[in-house]
Amino acid sequence: MSFYDQLKFDAKGLIPAIVQEQKTGRVLMMAWMNRAALEKTIATGRTHFWSRSRRKLWMKGEISGHVQRVKDITFDCDGDVLLIQVAQTGAACHEGYRSCFFRSVANDGKSFKITEAQLETPEQIYGKK
Amino acid sequence: MSFYDQLKFDAKGLIPAIVQEQKTGRVLMMAWMNRAALEKTIATGRTHFWSRSRRKLWMKGEISGHVQRVKDITFDCDGDVLLIQVAQTGAACHEGYRSCFFRSVANDGKSFKITEAQLETPEQIYGKK
Repeated sequence: MSFYDQLKFDAKGLIPAIVQEQKTGRVLMMAWMNRAALEKTIATGRTHFWSRSRRKLWMKGEISGHVQRVKDITFDCDGDVLLIQVAQTGAACHEGYRSCFFRSVANDGKSFKITEAQLETPEQIYGKK
Repeated sequence: MSFYDQLKFDAKGLIPAIVQEQKTGRVLMMAWMNRAALEKTIATGRTHFWSRSRRKLWMKGEISGHVQRVKDITFDCDGDVLLIQVAQTGAACHEGYRSCFFRSVANDGKSFKITEAQLETPEQIYGKK
């Protein structure tokens, strides 16, 4: 049976894809894929996603160079979430952090704290706008 | 500024919550929280979610005993995904696997393979139906 037959895309044809750095176990980001993005990810070995705001297919790192080389693709028991193991080049987060999850809840939800160093500024990654 | 002010719940009032085992880095599952589920998770130190199919709040492990003790709660750059570090009791997956992500893509998407041992059967966890 095909891998695709196991998947349930939502009403908009999308499925959430969690991206984890294989070497460290760090969860880097979550983004959305449609079937075309998933097929392109499998075909090229580079993560591709569907941008809900820009309504287009994009390759992670297409501007920043911070590409993700795919090592493994898994899916959950319900077939409605993907977990992708990658080798990450540079910062995964567009804000210049290694992971998009760089802030933790503090003080029972009354505040939060930044838990890691910023590797680069967005201006260093994308240039001045 | 409050942690909650940083979050963007979707049109249905939900936010995806990735659950990771802190000790091993294993991604265990992803489920959805509304604000009440998140508040209850913070208040009790046990993960709570919103079931979209059953339309009710539930605590992970309320039937199986496979609870998740919360160690850290982080959120991503866009404020629309949570990543929760836990200590997991027993199998996280209702199918009896440690993680819900127990199947990997094989053969360029043409097939898949089971990548880990089943710890218990659903019947052992939930009893016969």
